[in-house]
Amino acid sequence: MNTFGTNFRMTTFGESHGPAVGCVVDGCPPGVRFDLELLRTALQRRRPGQPGTTERSEPDEPEVLSGVFEGETTGAPIAIRVLNRDQSSKDYDELKNLYRPSHADYTYDRKYGVRDHRGGGRSSARETLARVAAGAVAQMAVTRTGAVEVVPAVTRLGSVDFAGDLSEFTADQVYASHIRMPETATAAKMIELLESVRSRGDSIGGVVSVLVRNLPVGIGDPIYAKLNALMAFGMMSINGAVGFEMGDGFEVTRRSGSRNNDQWTSEGGELRTVTNHSGGVSGGISNGMPLRFSVGFKPPSSIAIEQSHGTREGETVTHAITGRHDPSIVIRAVSVVEAMTWLVLADRMLPDITR
Amino acid sequence: MNTFGTNFRMTTFGESHGPAVGCVVDGCPPGVRFDLELLRTALQRRRPGQPGTTERSEPDEPEVLSGVFEGETTGAPIAIRVLNRDQSSKDYDELKNLYRPSHADYTYDRKYGVRDHRGGGRSSARETLARVAAGAVAQMAVTRTGAVEVVPAVTRLGSVDFAGDLSEFTADQVYASHIRMPETATAAKMIELLESVRSRGDSIGGVVSVLVRNLPVGIGDPIYAKLNALMAFGMMSINGAVGFEMGDGFEVTRRSGSRNNDQWTSEGGELRTVTNHSGGVSGGISNGMPLRFSVGFKPPSSIAIEQSHGTREGETVTHAITGRHDPSIVIRAVSVVEAMTWLVLADRMLPDITR
Amino acid sequence: MNTFGTNFRMTTFGESHGPAVGCVVDGCPPGVRFDLELLRTALQRRRPGQPGTTERSEPDEPEVLSGVFEGETTGAPIAIRVLNRDQSSKDYDELKNLYRPSHADYTYDRKYGVRDHRGGGRSSARETLARVAAGAVAQMAVTRTGAVEVVPAVTRLGSVDFAGDLSEFTADQVYASHIRMPETATAAKMIELLESVRSRGDSIGGVVSVLVRNLPVGIGDPIYAKLNALMAFGMMSINGAVGFEMGDGFEVTRRSGSRNNDQWTSEGGELRTVTNHSGGVSGGISNGMPLRFSVGFKPPSSIAIEQSHGTREGETVTHAITGRHDPSIVIRAVSVVEAMTWLVLADRMLPDITR
Amino acid sequence: MNTFGTNFRMTTFGESHGPAVGCVVDGCPPGVRFDLELLRTALQRRRPGQPGTTERSEPDEPEVLSGVFEGETTGAPIAIRVLNRDQSSKDYDELKNLYRPSHADYTYDRKYGVRDHRGGGRSSARETLARVAAGAVAQMAVTRTGAVEVVPAVTRLGSVDFAGDLSEFTADQVYASHIRMPETATAAKMIELLESVRSRGDSIGGVVSVLVRNLPVGIGDPIYAKLNALMAFGMMSINGAVGFEMGDGFEVTRRSGSRNNDQWTSEGGELRTVTNHSGGVSGGISNGMPLRFSVGFKPPSSIAIEQSHGTREGETVTHAITGRHDPSIVIRAVSVVEAMTWLVLADRMLPDITR
Repeated sequence: MNTFGTNFRMTTFGESHGPAVGCVVDGCPPGVRFDLELLRTALQRRRPGQPGTTERSEPDEPEVLSGVFEGETTGAPIAIRVLNRDQSSKDYDELKNLYRPSHADYTYDRKYGVRDHRGGGRSSARETLARVAAGAVAQMAVTRTGAVEVVPAVTRLGSVDFAGDLSEFTADQVYASHIRMPETATAAKMIELLESVRSRGDSIGGVVSVLVRNLPVGIGDPIYAKLNALMAFGMMSINGAVGFEMGDGFEVTRRSGSRNNDQWTSEGGELRTVTNHSGGVSGGISNGMPLRFSVGFKPPSSIAIEQSHGTREGETVTHAITGRHDPSIVIRAVSVVEAMTWLVLADRMLPDITR
Repeated sequence: MNTFGTNFRMTTFGESHGPAVGCVVDGCPPGVRFDLELLRTALQRRRPGQPGTTERSEPDEPEVLSGVFEGETTGAPIAIRVLNRDQSSKDYDELKNLYRPSHADYTYDRKYGVRDHRGGGRSSARETLARVAAGAVAQMAVTRTGAVEVVPAVTRLGSVDFAGDLSEFTADQVYASHIRMPETATAAKMIELLESVRSRGDSIGGVVSVLVRNLPVGIGDPIYAKLNALMAFGMMSINGAVGFEMGDGFEVTRRSGSRNNDQWTSEGGELRTVTNHSGGVSGGISNGMPLRFSVGFKPPSSIAIEQSHGTREGETVTHAITGRHDPSIVIRAVSVVEAMTWLVLADRMLPDITR
Repeated sequence: MNTFGTNFRMTTFGESHGPAVGCVVDGCPPGVRFDLELLRTALQRRRPGQPGTTERSEPDEPEVLSGVFEGETTGAPIAIRVLNRDQSSKDYDELKNLYRPSHADYTYDRKYGVRDHRGGGRSSARETLARVAAGAVAQMAVTRTGAVEVVPAVTRLGSVDFAGDLSEFTADQVYASHIRMPETATAAKMIELLESVRSRGDSIGGVVSVLVRNLPVGIGDPIYAKLNALMAFGMMSINGAVGFEMGDGFEVTRRSGSRNNDQWTSEGGELRTVTNHSGGVSGGISNGMPLRFSVGFKPPSSIAIEQSHGTREGETVTHAITGRHDPSIVIRAVSVVEAMTWLVLADRMLPDITR
Repeated sequence: MNTFGTNFRMTTFGESHGPAVGCVVDGCPPGVRFDLELLRTALQRRRPGQPGTTERSEPDEPEVLSGVFEGETTGAPIAIRVLNRDQSSKDYDELKNLYRPSHADYTYDRKYGVRDHRGGGRSSARETLARVAAGAVAQMAVTRTGAVEVVPAVTRLGSVDFAGDLSEFTADQVYASHIRMPETATAAKMIELLESVRSRGDSIGGVVSVLVRNLPVGIGDPIYAKLNALMAFGMMSINGAVGFEMGDGFEVTRRSGSRNNDQWTSEGGELRTVTNHSGGVSGGISNGMPLRFSVGFKPPSSIAIEQSHGTREGETVTHAITGRHDPSIVIRAVSVVEAMTWLVLADRMLPDITR
């Protein structure tokens, strides 16, 4: 099922080395100004060819095929297509019969019996381009309803943690940093670590954290489709995600209730909480405090070091993957995490246009 | 939306102090022997009145209203109802106009405008009874297809961690422990901590971990409905869940790829991985290794210590919640986490009976 | 899949001779006054034991298990259960290994391999009781939003047609007629025909037509979930339905456009159409004119005349079905058609409470 | 919601005068040979520029953007795009502020507030191109599982009825007829009528009937998603559809049960029915007999005769629509009805590839 969302729905398509990748966004309200520059910027922020990312260079120019008329959305589905350009498929011929360690090669082959092995096919990181395009449309629609702001950033790279607070930063400041960490001292340490990892052909894990400001009270369902559960689903659906935490996350598993409860206070007749350990959600529903969550990512599996690969015949061979690969997922994942955040918010906040 | 699952679907209903709670299980294949004892045992394992849990005592006897004929499922929906008995609604009158800290009171009231305040109403832990009943049906159906085993356990209570390996234990061994930790030394420490927390009217957080054995290769979707994403959604939908980790989880965010990749090995012509850092999933699809994940739970919000409550009028009052409350969620959460595991597995493994 | 609707959802359960039938209504907005008398009346109007229907007498008293607090809906799922009482299962023993002509016996057995043969099991007309209960809740919720009125009636019984116009009648007038035809001359002819059919142990087909007044403009989706398509789906899901027509229906397949187009006229600045051949829908969306559609029902398959039955062994035997059976479906179908109409309207008109 | 189907899903996009129309087909099993010629033929059979249809000439060449590798489907979503070429948008400028009689103009404008008025925008018949493309993929996948055959034909045009039996014909024979009626005498009368209607600037209604051969027993759900209900939904979602009949349809509303029941007979140990009044479905599930149903279509609303149009200001003006328009929908609808048939069958017959 290549559709995400129930009300604001993104359906994606495309393989790494096929003709194109793209999405159909369905459920976008009519009358939203279609901000092509916002879409282009989002795709640019996700692009490879930047520090810490692989060096393929593709313009990733979006074509809007439907759903926009005279600069505004019409309520009809919005199809966006981006051509694949830089397709050196033969780079991947060596992987035709090999299953890389900790990759999707083996499970795809066992599940489907066929596999587009070129660049990972559908399991390629290029699939996230379609998510980012749809996320940009979600952002256009959500921000029309209010001043919602999403600030994502790399808050951990291997041993380097960001000890500060995202609430001091804006998304623009984050994206101005090549490593998606706006605090310069931490960013410098992350860049240093990344170069060291890259130089030895290895890779490294990390964490992307998100702060959402100005979210109204009442977003999310009380029982199953809780806002935290929907975010967890969206984030864990990103390639390489290994964990999800809401608010203070696993830290609170060591705490007492007297230490962890967010006490109420009254600000001008409006209830607020003194602390925000819960990350802006109570009983699955947004409580008016900033939303805070984090997504852990594993180190990329593709490394330039010899490893044991599986074969279709059930044997193993030692092989070193060639080609250029990102030493970390988290940097590029920032814009994908942001996109999924907008998509979940759009799905739950926007009016249902079928009504 | 009070339905969980797309193929094997559970729809739940009922409030803490209404007439009954229950579920309708839809999509269960015909011809499954309906094991009423398994259902009763599951409900018993979830029951209050045990060490570490509140002292309400309800028999929780399930009535099966449909879908079973001559001891077997028929493919028709299976409705199960459990009456609510021990209803001292007046215990909760003091909460009618109060919003407890870190509870769902405020958000429910803001979202719906009305609220069944008695015992938390729909947000009560009693709702999990319906999940456990449906999970038991899921278990009956899944285990008919193969020797799948789910072993859940409390692996952290506050400062006490279980450093061992669940693969040495069975579910029966876990449930034989009142604190759901089969290793006696760790269990003793957990019980000691729990009593200490209880005695001072406080509460404590913890972690439930799950091991799934004998899962076939190929469960899960490659893009959005990845097995890990579905599990994250199911687990984060449980009251009090604050985080989800797959395999080694957040630990791998500090690791290098060379350390974290699961190398292939061949066992009698079958590919296996030497390590299982990824927790049994590659590219969102089960890879034949044991599934491993963990769910973090916060300390219960209801404590016997004075706290700042909100009021409907937007003010705050200091109040101490009375009545008996669990000092920890994790112990009772074990059977709920197990139920959600069976439900996700049933949803993705069982044949679609509409076909 | 025993759930109908995507926003206002009804999940039904129960077999003819099991313990109970019932439904869970999910998605009902909070704050709707729960009109228990309306629910009872709806179930009463569907009841057997009336002219033209079988003579089983069951009180069909609904128990509301959840979702209602202090006389109002809370936004939580509303479970309703009705016990089965009059269960002479042994009446059906003769059908254990027989497939009746034009019944679901054969296809259920082939699809599921097991079958609750008592009284048709899940394929029994008793399943419609759950639809009627849920439809009553839908009616409570929809009529709170405006003066929508649904007028269903039997407009054909075999050779007897109603040539008049439903717009002269109310639902109460229809239900005051035992044969669900408020015009007395036509009703008399229908009753006469019905008695004649019954006396020779045969059965007869018919048509139920519906008029919906005061529907706002804009209900329905433009492409797939058109209001007419949703109504067709709902109506064709009723046992025994053989056809669905919108507006003038199949009559217009013989017409020219110049004869069939509904010309615009202006009434006090509001556009209306001079005629309403299309039945109140343009491009799948309600246009403000009364909604009009009809549902054709076959003659009941159970007749007291010898017929060729199939056996599990693939042979045939001549057999006459005993017991009392309705000579027509349409009379009892009126309240089921009405219920499905309310359910479709509720699904598309009510606010989505997950938002 | 621009998605049709739950297992085999088609998501469509595109407006009449936008850059392109297309679809994403999700849920197609892997390993299906992708028959590009079948796809081209299907689009060709739907094309305008043939007797009885408008004279726009567009090559409608499909581009397959994803999901096919080395000539076979991979299980990934299949995106198909067809460019719009012949775009004389200014032809439609006169309709910018006018609501045509019995068109979607008014309801779209009222529902969305904005409208792409060029050629009907999303409500244009061009949207059916995407359905036909997806239907061709459905056909490729379904026919791989068995010898299922779909034979659609025009069985009524205004006053001209086809009194014969579709079971004597094949789909190729139907499409060899410009008017989609393989019996030459009836076809001649239909063509004569059509020319007469066209010459006076009027339009005419009609019926498309479908016969499905070699369908296995067991397709369809017993309660809501009955095969007949799903077909009714799919067919009534086509522009201009006014009615749906299963088997003998509304004729049986006049019949007695003794006349209408399909008696069982045994053929070589297999049960068959002597007659097939029910059209191949019992209790919502296919019974192994040929599936038979009919769809009624209204006369096209666009005629060259002066009519009363509505305006955005709530007034009316007399106007004659210019440009070339089909005098009948049914001829072109044949391939759309066929496509929807394949899509419903694919949705219910094919294995769920998420499992």
